[in-house]
Amino acid sequence: MNMVPAGASALDLPAAMAAAAAEIDAALDEVLPRVEGDEARLFDAMRYSTIGGGKRLRGFLVLEGARQFNVSRQAALRVACAIEMVHAYSLIHDDLPAMDDDDLRRGKPTNHKAFDEATAILAGDALQSHAFTVLAAEATHPDPAVRIELVRMLAHAAGPRGMVGGQMLDIMAEQSCGALDESAIGRLQLLKTGKLIEFSAEAGAVLGKAAPSQRQALGAYGRELGAAFQIADDLLDATATTEEVGKATAKDAGAGKATLVGLLGLERARLQAERLVAQARDHLDGFSERADMLRALADFVIARRN
Amino acid sequence: MNMVPAGASALDLPAAMAAAAAEIDAALDEVLPRVEGDEARLFDAMRYSTIGGGKRLRGFLVLEGARQFNVSRQAALRVACAIEMVHAYSLIHDDLPAMDDDDLRRGKPTNHKAFDEATAILAGDALQSHAFTVLAAEATHPDPAVRIELVRMLAHAAGPRGMVGGQMLDIMAEQSCGALDESAIGRLQLLKTGKLIEFSAEAGAVLGKAAPSQRQALGAYGRELGAAFQIADDLLDATATTEEVGKATAKDAGAGKATLVGLLGLERARLQAERLVAQARDHLDGFSERADMLRALADFVIARRN
Repeated sequence: MNMVPAGASALDLPAAMAAAAAEIDAALDEVLPRVEGDEARLFDAMRYSTIGGGKRLRGFLVLEGARQFNVSRQAALRVACAIEMVHAYSLIHDDLPAMDDDDLRRGKPTNHKAFDEATAILAGDALQSHAFTVLAAEATHPDPAVRIELVRMLAHAAGPRGMVGGQMLDIMAEQSCGALDESAIGRLQLLKTGKLIEFSAEAGAVLGKAAPSQRQALGAYGRELGAAFQIADDLLDATATTEEVGKATAKDAGAGKATLVGLLGLERARLQAERLVAQARDHLDGFSERADMLRALADFVIARRN
Repeated sequence: MNMVPAGASALDLPAAMAAAAAEIDAALDEVLPRVEGDEARLFDAMRYSTIGGGKRLRGFLVLEGARQFNVSRQAALRVACAIEMVHAYSLIHDDLPAMDDDDLRRGKPTNHKAFDEATAILAGDALQSHAFTVLAAEATHPDPAVRIELVRMLAHAAGPRGMVGGQMLDIMAEQSCGALDESAIGRLQLLKTGKLIEFSAEAGAVLGKAAPSQRQALGAYGRELGAAFQIADDLLDATATTEEVGKATAKDAGAGKATLVGLLGLERARLQAERLVAQARDHLDGFSERADMLRALADFVIARRN
């Protein structure tokens, strides 16, 4: 599996992702509260887990989706910031002692290790609120109908019938020692990581007031991509080292986590991920060469080593 | 201090609050996910801390504010649900072992005692998202500009420059053993509880597309009311029993909490609360007798014993 697909060799995806990550970091620096005043510790903790270090897969999807519809860079960057803040909040809470109890994230101490548990809980809570503050602001889009649609989508993708629902399923699967079948694992992962990735892929179409068919195609692309990404993540957990990925690995098997890799084995899981990537690319058939970066990204998610 | 002000003796505030609480509970039952499916535990925990037991001060403010402008009952109830969900989420997280470590809330075990810490963290997170889902839905108001304004206000009131900022200040004040002056305590409490109460009082004016002056008057009423309410809460902590209020009392002094009661003493704090209540009522001068319940509420917050 090559990182760059045939016919798109002029694309330098890693460089594009790095440039987007830097741009998103600069935008996050703008929209997050300055570290000053009596609440400086909270603002510091919010920034610690949000700015720097991530691959920015979700933010990159927003920017590349928006590129299909000539959306203003400012609008796309603000939505990218919102989704990255929600993602960061979910990681902070996921890493807490009462949840996954992790010490390392993106190659540095987790939020509650760098600060303390109370601050980490509050930083996560504040990042969720702040994501909606950023979406709701007029700077995100002049049309309130566009902004409220983004709020509706993000609140649903993050909420009890989205990411948080998936986190609950994940915890319960662990307690029942991973006795889930393939369809239950698929649903868990669709909720836990798929919904936010679907949002990210679809958001640009909302910003660009795209035709429903185009919006649906990007959403479907995001769903398949998210599922492939999750399998790739589990494959990494099973095969890569802590140094490569910047967080603890080989945790899933030990924790009795329900993953497709555990259920299907490495090779069948890898084939499944490749099938999903092909399906993701198919959803982009109606798009021009402006979608080549999204096509390359689909291949990249299962080729990456971190 | 009478509970019912002169000239409003026909008002039965406690009965009105009880009726509103029942109506809000029924609306919460509608908008919260049913307890079914594999995530039932999450939905159960969300409901456990949201439906039943609260005074519904915030929800009542939304309903009474909306009454001034002939807002539809459905719209007002949905906003009341959203603010009560945010309030419930903040209590769940506040009660966690890493925060205030409380076992009792509204006369029953706190969420993490009834369920577990991980579930409590997730239930709080999901309630915050779900509040925005409820606000963003078309059923809340046909005009997207109204819905996005409510989202903007609530996200700000709940976020790092509102409630969560106040919670951070509160924790830091405890660690520095309550050495705050009157103005720092006032700011802490404005953020921690005042902002959501201000939102509640103002929301009806937004739903009713009221004139800016009326919207500002209701917001100012909410700010003064919130400040009075906080002093009353601290007075209760200092003087009432656990049985009366349904949660642990006399905790503030032991925990070195920064309160005006601790700084000013019981009598001066009580006078300060009465001054705030008078100011709150003054902001309602431009309103008709339809605001009598809001006037009565101002007196009630400092007269209550639970």
